[in-house]
Amino acid sequence: MFFPRLYRELYSDANLNRAWRAVRRVSTATGLDAMTATHFEARAFILLKQLQDDLRAFRYRPQPVKRIFMKREIGPPRPLGIPTFVDRIVQRGLVQVLIPVFEPHFDECSHAYRTGRSPQTALAQAKDFARNGKSWVVKLDLSDCFGNIPHRPLLRAVFRRVKDCAVRKLLVRLLSVEIVTESNSGMRQVSKPGRGILQGSPLSPLLANIYLDAFDQALRKLELRFVRYGDDIAIFLSTKPEAEAALETATRLLEKMFMPVNREKTKVHHLGTGFKYLGEWFRWRREKS
Amino acid sequence: MFFPRLYRELYSDANLNRAWRAVRRVSTATGLDAMTATHFEARAFILLKQLQDDLRAFRYRPQPVKRIFMKREIGPPRPLGIPTFVDRIVQRGLVQVLIPVFEPHFDECSHAYRTGRSPQTALAQAKDFARNGKSWVVKLDLSDCFGNIPHRPLLRAVFRRVKDCAVRKLLVRLLSVEIVTESNSGMRQVSKPGRGILQGSPLSPLLANIYLDAFDQALRKLELRFVRYGDDIAIFLSTKPEAEAALETATRLLEKMFMPVNREKTKVHHLGTGFKYLGEWFRWRREKS
Repeated sequence: MFFPRLYRELYSDANLNRAWRAVRRVSTATGLDAMTATHFEARAFILLKQLQDDLRAFRYRPQPVKRIFMKREIGPPRPLGIPTFVDRIVQRGLVQVLIPVFEPHFDECSHAYRTGRSPQTALAQAKDFARNGKSWVVKLDLSDCFGNIPHRPLLRAVFRRVKDCAVRKLLVRLLSVEIVTESNSGMRQVSKPGRGILQGSPLSPLLANIYLDAFDQALRKLELRFVRYGDDIAIFLSTKPEAEAALETATRLLEKMFMPVNREKTKVHHLGTGFKYLGEWFRWRREKS
Repeated sequence: MFFPRLYRELYSDANLNRAWRAVRRVSTATGLDAMTATHFEARAFILLKQLQDDLRAFRYRPQPVKRIFMKREIGPPRPLGIPTFVDRIVQRGLVQVLIPVFEPHFDECSHAYRTGRSPQTALAQAKDFARNGKSWVVKLDLSDCFGNIPHRPLLRAVFRRVKDCAVRKLLVRLLSVEIVTESNSGMRQVSKPGRGILQGSPLSPLLANIYLDAFDQALRKLELRFVRYGDDIAIFLSTKPEAEAALETATRLLEKMFMPVNREKTKVHHLGTGFKYLGEWFRWRREKS
């Protein structure tokens, strides 16, 4: 598959207009340049034209991202990487042109970050498997999925369908931006990790889906029934031995992809007792069906 | 004075961005294409780029304006001419580049539609004249000032300072747009008057000031003290005979400019009894000074 016009589509008027409106709608945190949606909006026509010219002339370079920490109810704060407002527009624009390239090839089992799909569609699919007698479930738990995705294999996965050199180069640049952590005392620490995609960057969810698609395809080839919502993976089987074998297979597959599985939290469950999936207690009682 | 870069300045990123934001802030009525600020905003980057390309390539043509009638407390409804949203942006952009050309030459007596000036500055100037013994006032009343300004002399007045051919051509086009009146039954009546500028068009206030500037200059030459707020004109004199002579002079001047004076409402007042000016009762009591 060859998409020579992808880059031109990226910086088209319509795509940038749509990306800017999408970013404006969701963005609250500011990147290192402290540009807010309101500041950008006051000069939107000027700044979008500059961005378009920079992209067209291959002058555009993403800025370093700002590392912030989001507090969680349980566990340590989650590290986020906030690109500048302009970089978020570029990433969002890139997502918009990449989705039609990848979406038709994604598996039915993958439910996160996709139009028309949600935790509800994932749970519905899981119920369907249970209804058909698959009452043993392998619930896999990945340790820091986004943070462990390795850059080179990820780029290979993207490049399989993206032949446009300009888009490829842009992706390489976006993946390798520096991360700046500012301490309260004003100290700046700069890092440039060779792996991991950033929570808080508009491009990351799509990249995660592209990378984990290989896992979906492998399970599909093995004719296993499963549901994946981002890194929340559940495989449905008929017997306990089958489930234990599937756990081993899936763990090996993921580890081969450099995605470490949290073996302590990865378990085989029976639907009679149930397990927690996507925030809901998932349980199946035969008498109800 | 020669401004070859005026047209290029008109369609510059910064000028269009500023014009679009200004129009969006004030606009509620819709023109013939029914485009609202919200509709425009959803595709602002695309539409502003199209407009810019059209202006740059001399392809831009103003659309007919929509005639609507605004009810007034007293008197017949005031006719307004509402250009389309895009045309309002062009007019506003044109005002922004023309103001620096004309503003330095406008008279101190002219207070309407100018930055830093208001009915208050007009009244303060009037008080100043009264304080200096000018206690006789000629209050001139023009019949439908905007509607009577003739196009050719107006264009001559503008062209005195605007040599840029593209801007001149654009002004001619903007002045000669058709006016469409839609009746409640859906009948459309199209007219193209040879004179008059439209209330409700962003360009009109500046054009009125440019046209009436000749009147300001003539009174100035005659060393008459006066205040003008749009078409609200008051001349201040020391004696009754002087006032009566000034009334005749000013009326003749205006009529030579094709601006009919409402002679019934045009009167000489003494500040002891007072007169109504800019919505305030203007009166001077010597004992107070």
